[in-house]
Amino acid sequence: MNPKAAVIQLVSGACVQDNLEAAARQIAAAAAAGASLVLLPENFAVLDAGPLPEFAEEEGRTDSLLQGFLSAQAARHGITLIGGTIPLITRPRHEEEEPERLGDGRVRPACLVYGPQGALLARYDKIHLFDVEVEDKQSRYSESLRFEPGDEIVCVDTPAGRVGLSICYDLRFAELYQSLREQGAQLLTVPSAFTQVTGAAHWEVLLRARAIENQCYVLAANQGGVHNDKRETYGHSMIVDPWGTVLAKHEKGEGFALAQIDLSHLERVRSRMPVHSHRRLF
Amino acid sequence: MNPKAAVIQLVSGACVQDNLEAAARQIAAAAAAGASLVLLPENFAVLDAGPLPEFAEEEGRTDSLLQGFLSAQAARHGITLIGGTIPLITRPRHEEEEPERLGDGRVRPACLVYGPQGALLARYDKIHLFDVEVEDKQSRYSESLRFEPGDEIVCVDTPAGRVGLSICYDLRFAELYQSLREQGAQLLTVPSAFTQVTGAAHWEVLLRARAIENQCYVLAANQGGVHNDKRETYGHSMIVDPWGTVLAKHEKGEGFALAQIDLSHLERVRSRMPVHSHRRLF
Repeated sequence: MNPKAAVIQLVSGACVQDNLEAAARQIAAAAAAGASLVLLPENFAVLDAGPLPEFAEEEGRTDSLLQGFLSAQAARHGITLIGGTIPLITRPRHEEEEPERLGDGRVRPACLVYGPQGALLARYDKIHLFDVEVEDKQSRYSESLRFEPGDEIVCVDTPAGRVGLSICYDLRFAELYQSLREQGAQLLTVPSAFTQVTGAAHWEVLLRARAIENQCYVLAANQGGVHNDKRETYGHSMIVDPWGTVLAKHEKGEGFALAQIDLSHLERVRSRMPVHSHRRLF
Repeated sequence: MNPKAAVIQLVSGACVQDNLEAAARQIAAAAAAGASLVLLPENFAVLDAGPLPEFAEEEGRTDSLLQGFLSAQAARHGITLIGGTIPLITRPRHEEEEPERLGDGRVRPACLVYGPQGALLARYDKIHLFDVEVEDKQSRYSESLRFEPGDEIVCVDTPAGRVGLSICYDLRFAELYQSLREQGAQLLTVPSAFTQVTGAAHWEVLLRARAIENQCYVLAANQGGVHNDKRETYGHSMIVDPWGTVLAKHEKGEGFALAQIDLSHLERVRSRMPVHSHRRLF
């Protein structure tokens, strides 16, 4: 039987505890509907909650609020849980580097993946930060003031297939997904907080394009509603198949979309149109 | 005043002379509507006409049928004409190579660009050949049996802006368009013969994605109708702006779509969301 995947849509607010409760509610609903792979949206827990360093955690601390939540949820439902993003303190490379790197108060937007026993399987830090003017009320987004970007491309094996990780604004950079495909990805995950304006113009087109050109399933969990006076997100969380067909979609507000992941369908698409082996420039 | 561009849609048949007459008819109509940049579809003249070497020309022969036609049409209407594709014999690199390279009877699918005085400005040879199974009556396409691929990425300056050249199946390879953008392209041209099946599934999504991710105008001229018992093409020739909005579209049959090219709009899109300068992996 084919495994089922779910993408969860939230309208996260300023209160972290409320956000965790909403996430828990939707994870339980998705698991009850049969999902064995569940994706949360970007900033599912910490969104406009205050200075990020106050919430940022050190990787691997299972007694911490956010990582503790993700690990426990994965284990409780026996699912693979891809935890949208949470703020993590900059990964210390060398002992002596740490104080300096943390000195500017920046953190990394990290996507952590937990297995059905609650173990941490993988971590991806967002490579492309959103420093953009949008024609909405907030008008200017400057993620690089608060975040430090990652620099590693990450795939992880799950019972539903090999997953290539990405986050939100990454979606505009086709080369990341080609590298993930090159590393064997069969599913591409895109936890996001796409704005209403850019989402209406670009969200579905880019998700379908990444599915088509890489012949992968695309799982896209978005924030979807009005968060506060200044921020509205687009929603339309969806699952796209490797031929580019939208299999399931949740348009607005809290909820989830669910679909089967059929790797034999993926193999048929790839063998009939072997785009990957036709590459001559990548 | 902003220049206007037109993409011409044809339903080319087995008779080259009929095809040239249809192309001339639509070029005249587009020029009369104010287009100063005109794009023809792939195989606009030679489509299922017989063995390709019989029609393939040597580059630069203005007394030849196909190149003579394109040059004369550009000059007659005082337009920049991007001539879809015509078969050209393999470009001889060295005198002694030529006989051998022609020996296997292969030719190159070439896109030639002519200026308003009828001079040849640029040549692009299709890099990615269509060797694919499609769920339609023809079912298997094997361009590499008849064609040799090109290996050079080509931009050309025109009065409407800097144009990056591509052809049909190239559309699936995002990296080509990123290279064209890197070389300064403001417009991307995609003369095509997308099948009905693949076109309905992928054509508009991929065209809009290339426009959005490269923040370029995309000009896409497709074949669009029933050519013979085995071949039906999708049509929907269109012009997309750098924000991904479809400005004009011609759905089925012979005709054209027309739109203004506004480079100040393009600059606004690029400066508000500087995707190109945010690249970290390309």
